[in-house]
Amino acid sequence: MSHQTKYLLEESQLPKAWYNIQADLPKPLPPPLHPGTMQPLGPADLAPLFPMSLIQQEVSQEREIEIPEPVRDVLRLWRPSPLFRAHRLEKALGTPAKIFYKYEGVSPAGSHKPNTAIPQAFFNMTEGVKKLTTETGAGQWGTSLAFAGSLFGIDVTVFQVRVSYDQKPYRRAVMETYGARCIASPSMETNYGRSVLAARPDHPGSLGIAISEAVEIAATNDDTKYALGSVLNHVLMHQTITGIEAMQQMQMADCWPDVIVGCTGGGSNFAGIAFPFIGQGLRGGAKPRIVAVEPAACPSLTRGKYAYDFGDTAHMAPLTKMHTLGSTFTPPGFHAGGLRYHGMAPLVSHLKELGLLEATAYHQTECFAAGVAFARAEGIVPAPEANHAVKGAIEEALRCKREGRSEVILFNLCGHGHFDMAAYQAYFSGQLRDDHYDEAELAMALAGLPSVPEPA
Amino acid sequence: MSHQTKYLLEESQLPKAWYNIQADLPKPLPPPLHPGTMQPLGPADLAPLFPMSLIQQEVSQEREIEIPEPVRDVLRLWRPSPLFRAHRLEKALGTPAKIFYKYEGVSPAGSHKPNTAIPQAFFNMTEGVKKLTTETGAGQWGTSLAFAGSLFGIDVTVFQVRVSYDQKPYRRAVMETYGARCIASPSMETNYGRSVLAARPDHPGSLGIAISEAVEIAATNDDTKYALGSVLNHVLMHQTITGIEAMQQMQMADCWPDVIVGCTGGGSNFAGIAFPFIGQGLRGGAKPRIVAVEPAACPSLTRGKYAYDFGDTAHMAPLTKMHTLGSTFTPPGFHAGGLRYHGMAPLVSHLKELGLLEATAYHQTECFAAGVAFARAEGIVPAPEANHAVKGAIEEALRCKREGRSEVILFNLCGHGHFDMAAYQAYFSGQLRDDHYDEAELAMALAGLPSVPEPA
Repeated sequence: MSHQTKYLLEESQLPKAWYNIQADLPKPLPPPLHPGTMQPLGPADLAPLFPMSLIQQEVSQEREIEIPEPVRDVLRLWRPSPLFRAHRLEKALGTPAKIFYKYEGVSPAGSHKPNTAIPQAFFNMTEGVKKLTTETGAGQWGTSLAFAGSLFGIDVTVFQVRVSYDQKPYRRAVMETYGARCIASPSMETNYGRSVLAARPDHPGSLGIAISEAVEIAATNDDTKYALGSVLNHVLMHQTITGIEAMQQMQMADCWPDVIVGCTGGGSNFAGIAFPFIGQGLRGGAKPRIVAVEPAACPSLTRGKYAYDFGDTAHMAPLTKMHTLGSTFTPPGFHAGGLRYHGMAPLVSHLKELGLLEATAYHQTECFAAGVAFARAEGIVPAPEANHAVKGAIEEALRCKREGRSEVILFNLCGHGHFDMAAYQAYFSGQLRDDHYDEAELAMALAGLPSVPEPA
Repeated sequence: MSHQTKYLLEESQLPKAWYNIQADLPKPLPPPLHPGTMQPLGPADLAPLFPMSLIQQEVSQEREIEIPEPVRDVLRLWRPSPLFRAHRLEKALGTPAKIFYKYEGVSPAGSHKPNTAIPQAFFNMTEGVKKLTTETGAGQWGTSLAFAGSLFGIDVTVFQVRVSYDQKPYRRAVMETYGARCIASPSMETNYGRSVLAARPDHPGSLGIAISEAVEIAATNDDTKYALGSVLNHVLMHQTITGIEAMQQMQMADCWPDVIVGCTGGGSNFAGIAFPFIGQGLRGGAKPRIVAVEPAACPSLTRGKYAYDFGDTAHMAPLTKMHTLGSTFTPPGFHAGGLRYHGMAPLVSHLKELGLLEATAYHQTECFAAGVAFARAEGIVPAPEANHAVKGAIEEALRCKREGRSEVILFNLCGHGHFDMAAYQAYFSGQLRDDHYDEAELAMALAGLPSVPEPA
């Protein structure tokens, strides 16, 4: 007896619109604030950095926003992505639960990031932008924007955190393959970078510094804009294509999730799988449990404060209300680089405050153990970030086993780990340890949160 | 106007049988010879190394051999694999040709190798084999057999050429993730390995030595068999699932290939895409041109001699009639490690002698240039091996442009390059050079081919 493993959609079933959860929120999202005036931002304040079409998406209250045909035409290179039933993992766990996973590692960059890189490059192109700058840590996002730029004729410059630039030259080679320029940050190419290097010539860099460098270039050059790979409303919205496809695929499987699991760093892959389901619940439909899994060493949702904070360490970026560990908090150097951010997407934070999702945190070694169990059963080696979602899903499946319940679990496997085998190597050699942040540093970072007037 | 990018098959369309080209050969394949007696081998001679079901497949003259349901059930994890129309590459080349590519990088190992690793592990399991040994160079094949072993409860030991073991630890980490043991070869675990190390303690290893070590373990342990990732008839047959799927997908696209291109090292991915089409031609159907692309630094089909030769350097393996550069020939260290073999699959060689396929050779820098052009147009970064097929397909497309012909080109993109970015890095930094073998060494290796009695 054979049973279905993959649920595939036709290209004609590729979603025609993104889902904007702002249309269904019971309470509107607190607005972002200007870093200088601490007053709510207007679209004009963002115009030096982003094209107007993306600024409009950022604040739109429309439920559906059309995906332009040229964007869909690129997404078709790998989308619709497959939904898998994890028969072998279920058997290995001995659980009565049904486990499904949406696999985003089929994209050319190996992760979910191109889902937003493609539309961001497209909308910039339509408004005549010739150059884009961005930052990247481990390189997933920089790779994705490089790919998008190559397709829409936009020059892409990526400021990569120096320590990653030196340690992970292969990601840089992928960016160069797509024709992008990759610069170690801090660099001599910006005022801010030069000031950092003047104070400390061997500075290893940080995401905060790299953001500031990318923003500076965009803000001071008319033909250049800036792109961000997570956190912002429009970025999360671009990722909802994942959840919209998953809804169609769950119908094909004649199942509906009781619980949905995703890993959270900035929040975009999690939002992608979860928001369409949350929105359906807000409109009176089924309400699956929604579980965000974050690294215990950088636990913004479970240990952070819901407050206005800066998005970058140099305080050049707008303030948003979010779960934050404080913009001066330095996450330990664990391997899931994509989850090492002091804050959380404002939309994800808002939903948490509204009681519409749960959050939980795990340390990296238990997440790698989960990833290895998954690889041995299902074949795919997950990225370290995705291992957090795998761990969360396995914990739910084991709960179902204890409780004798055959619930349906859906999780987002947001990327493969082929670029991250050094981390697995450390795991197998016993050299991987669980990082713990400094409680005193966290307390200090939280005490240092900016005091802002509550907007009217 | 949108146009179809991917041609996807349902799981129910996964082929139910492999295609065995031996059934359609106008002249039978010369038999393998025993390395001791130089007489044709019988099935019993192979029994210490392979399970009887695979030995039967090796010599079978049946046109179709059923794929067992448990094998199909695993293949469904990533198969049927997609066929793509390369619209963007066509546009970038300005060619009237229609370019299609079958993409095998969607497998968990990132290449076509699991197509045969899974059935090999399965047939061993059904005959009670508990342990498998094999060799690997860069690691694609070792990874694939490790994955297959994890699914069928077989312990896998991989002898990896020491220079690769040291230089490419990430592939080893993938093997360990799947639960396999990976040993640097030459090792102290075999008589042959110990003898090599006694003569030269710092020996960097070679595929030939690693084969001998793996074979020695299998030949001297009752519960252990040996597995090979290319060259043998049954291995090539397992890969025909690729071409059989491609035939269904070309029909979906309402096109039929005028020319089919694949890269050749041992010959298995090439055979996979080409044999079903060649067979159709042999049975009176359409006869597309078939082009094998090999590295100019290891040109067995274009510069080798069609003769009986040993499969390994230690001369423990059977002799087969094939295009060979001589078993003492040492290919230069170019990056397409999967194509660095002194011989060619006997079936591919036989078809070449029968005039049923063409062969051409390219140097690696021109292949990397082709791979970069492909990545910028189509998104996928090809493996260095696959770049040879990309180069061959682009050359055909440019010929079509010159001749004003809108031919249909189909090629096999046998794997992604995410594990091979060091090679791209060398390419971008200008450090990649074209390797040239030593003409005197080739002449000597060819002069040293064994003299064998022509079989009756």
